[in-house]
Amino acid sequence: MRMYDIINSKKHGDKLTEEQIKYFIEGYVKGDIPDYQVSALLMAICFNNLDIDESVWLTKAMIDSGDVINLEHIKGITIDKHSTGGVGDKTSLSLLPLLASFDLVGSKMSGRGLGHTGGTLDKLESIEGFNIYLSSEDAERIVEENNFIICGQTANLVPADKKLYALRDVTATVDNIGLISSSIMSKKIASGAKNIILDVKVGSGAFMKDLDSAIKLSETMVNIGHNFGRNVMTVITNMDQPLGKAVGNSLEVIEAVETLKGNGPEDFNHLVMFLCANFLVLTEKAKTLEEAEKMAMEHISNGSALDYFRKFVELQDGDARVVDDYNRFKTASIVKPVISNREGYVEKIIAEEIGLASLALGAGREKKEDEIDYSAGIMIAKKVGDYINIGDTIATIYVNSETNIETVSEKIKKAYYIGDDKVTENKLIYGTVDINGFKKYM
Amino acid sequence: MRMYDIINSKKHGDKLTEEQIKYFIEGYVKGDIPDYQVSALLMAICFNNLDIDESVWLTKAMIDSGDVINLEHIKGITIDKHSTGGVGDKTSLSLLPLLASFDLVGSKMSGRGLGHTGGTLDKLESIEGFNIYLSSEDAERIVEENNFIICGQTANLVPADKKLYALRDVTATVDNIGLISSSIMSKKIASGAKNIILDVKVGSGAFMKDLDSAIKLSETMVNIGHNFGRNVMTVITNMDQPLGKAVGNSLEVIEAVETLKGNGPEDFNHLVMFLCANFLVLTEKAKTLEEAEKMAMEHISNGSALDYFRKFVELQDGDARVVDDYNRFKTASIVKPVISNREGYVEKIIAEEIGLASLALGAGREKKEDEIDYSAGIMIAKKVGDYINIGDTIATIYVNSETNIETVSEKIKKAYYIGDDKVTENKLIYGTVDINGFKKYM
Repeated sequence: MRMYDIINSKKHGDKLTEEQIKYFIEGYVKGDIPDYQVSALLMAICFNNLDIDESVWLTKAMIDSGDVINLEHIKGITIDKHSTGGVGDKTSLSLLPLLASFDLVGSKMSGRGLGHTGGTLDKLESIEGFNIYLSSEDAERIVEENNFIICGQTANLVPADKKLYALRDVTATVDNIGLISSSIMSKKIASGAKNIILDVKVGSGAFMKDLDSAIKLSETMVNIGHNFGRNVMTVITNMDQPLGKAVGNSLEVIEAVETLKGNGPEDFNHLVMFLCANFLVLTEKAKTLEEAEKMAMEHISNGSALDYFRKFVELQDGDARVVDDYNRFKTASIVKPVISNREGYVEKIIAEEIGLASLALGAGREKKEDEIDYSAGIMIAKKVGDYINIGDTIATIYVNSETNIETVSEKIKKAYYIGDDKVTENKLIYGTVDINGFKKYM
Repeated sequence: MRMYDIINSKKHGDKLTEEQIKYFIEGYVKGDIPDYQVSALLMAICFNNLDIDESVWLTKAMIDSGDVINLEHIKGITIDKHSTGGVGDKTSLSLLPLLASFDLVGSKMSGRGLGHTGGTLDKLESIEGFNIYLSSEDAERIVEENNFIICGQTANLVPADKKLYALRDVTATVDNIGLISSSIMSKKIASGAKNIILDVKVGSGAFMKDLDSAIKLSETMVNIGHNFGRNVMTVITNMDQPLGKAVGNSLEVIEAVETLKGNGPEDFNHLVMFLCANFLVLTEKAKTLEEAEKMAMEHISNGSALDYFRKFVELQDGDARVVDDYNRFKTASIVKPVISNREGYVEKIIAEEIGLASLALGAGREKKEDEIDYSAGIMIAKKVGDYINIGDTIATIYVNSETNIETVSEKIKKAYYIGDDKVTENKLIYGTVDINGFKKYM
């Protein structure tokens, strides 16, 4: 077998064989096949695509490149949730304890932030003492006791994806449905959970620019999951603005906790409840979404979801008192409003720009080595659909240095698209895709 | 400017700018842009193509990557001829002296053979003493005295093409019209001649599989040449069999000399005369092709073309007595016929297979370092259209070792496609393309 022939086949629109895909991934990981041949193949794939079989084979070859986590010893139903990336996305922090309160077990390995998106691990580390490094014994023990953990990746999962993604990133070959699905699904499947819900974001800043391609991506991922014996569904959501109001590490933890107390911002709360309800139906804890949503609300109002969160922080060595006393977080020395000089209805808030503004305040990393200011960030005051008068506060900046407040303020203002007409369409959730296809939401 | 954006633009079907193409070629030659980004761009070009402007800009950027030969000091009309590659293609050896006899000046830099195609320099070196290494002073002097030289490349012409071609070769990105034209035309233009005829081969073994793509390639190259102020035309020829009868170094030189004596094999003689006639019309030495062909035949029959060849060998230190005494070539110790075990009409002879058979006899190089046996090769006895009886000699093998005669015999037999029906269509020349478009030949 020769890599040349594999490239040439895909270039001419042929379907690759399982052996060819295996040969290419194994050879690439070993270093026998050079980057320049792989990037040529990736570009050919961007034009001629992968069908479901090829995507499944690619997923399998990638999984086989590293370790696989076996969760079968866990008593209980295992779940996993993934988002294709968003600004202000603290969903896991609220959703996992809520699911845990229904005995749905989440053994989540998360990552750090880079660029405009924050990382769940960074958010958690804004809690004094919080430990993301768990031995496998500790991880097992905590999961048994409290139904979920969130920690850093210890096992060497899907090294092929790391190498491939780095190459795709610099050769303009990221946005292909077959490649995206195999990348996401290989990691989800190697992580071991049986029930998986994927939050697929749609919008100008997301991989998927429109609903149709989001549905196509969803169908492919659901299909791949099915091939590996997993229950997979996707929730397709709008990325026309940051999720919730908080962007920045401790600010987002506080918002997640507020949501567990029943005081979350409307859109974020809506998404958490919707995801929870879908998990309850997917795992047959509930028969209908209506029943499931009621169950979820019950576990918010009776405090059981919050209890799971409190215990989670405690078990991972964090100061759980933050849950009831936000002053125990490091706080920003400067709190400054961003004042609007325009008026009208908010049509759109470019999430990526808000993410970059937050990064500029110190809340994120430009390079891997950068240190994070956990107290820095932005609280969004006006969201899509709101009316703004000149002089209104549209957002508040939290920062510890005066240096670039003005630039960041301008950046935030620029992220706001303001128009004269009332916004009629403002949907967060477009619908879901499972093995039976797309179901529009309301 | 970022290479990423250039890849992404071409991937999305945009037209690249002259600056982008210049940036990419300069960066690649300098080593600032890595192979893996270039191969991704090349693959995107294979799908979305280059238009004429982009092809001209690419040609220019490639020319600018190295030296350019200035032939303006030469008194006389400069010509150059190029073939997209063929087995048994000794055209330059007959054509250049013939053109020289009309004061058309050819300062040809040629290459060595690799794989199944032979190199003009290797063929010439089968002549005792022949020197392909000329100082620029000697080259100038000989051109002035005898109107043409054939020598090795001294100047550093188009290094970008060398690097780019090596990458295309291993990433399945060779067969794109924009890339092929820029590669060929950059070298032709950098070589300095004003009047250029390109022999574009069509057939299963050639870059261009059908007449339509050969015409498209031709139009692009003619257009590029026009942009650089050159007179360019192409002759589109059939590659359904080796050209002429001789394949192998000294065998081909002898055939070229025989052709200059008026005894060449029909197809090869036809091509040489046709190319010569077109050059005479292109350079306004003749008004019509008919007139030009008569002039060409005249210079064969009166021996003036042969005189130019004899003097050429002499001036480049070769033993010119070979022209009249072929025994002065090193001869093969074994001469063995290949006998047919089938009967019928020859429909096709896979030229590449004959080239590989000749290579296996020692007439070519598999790797750059390999030594050549100048006396080895194959004489084709039966050509397309001929009828073969069982027991007929279809070819003769010239070799100095018994080792692989049987394997090579089988290889040659396999290269022959034999059928029951008389071959009606057996065209060598399909037509020509100049700035006015395609003109079908008869």
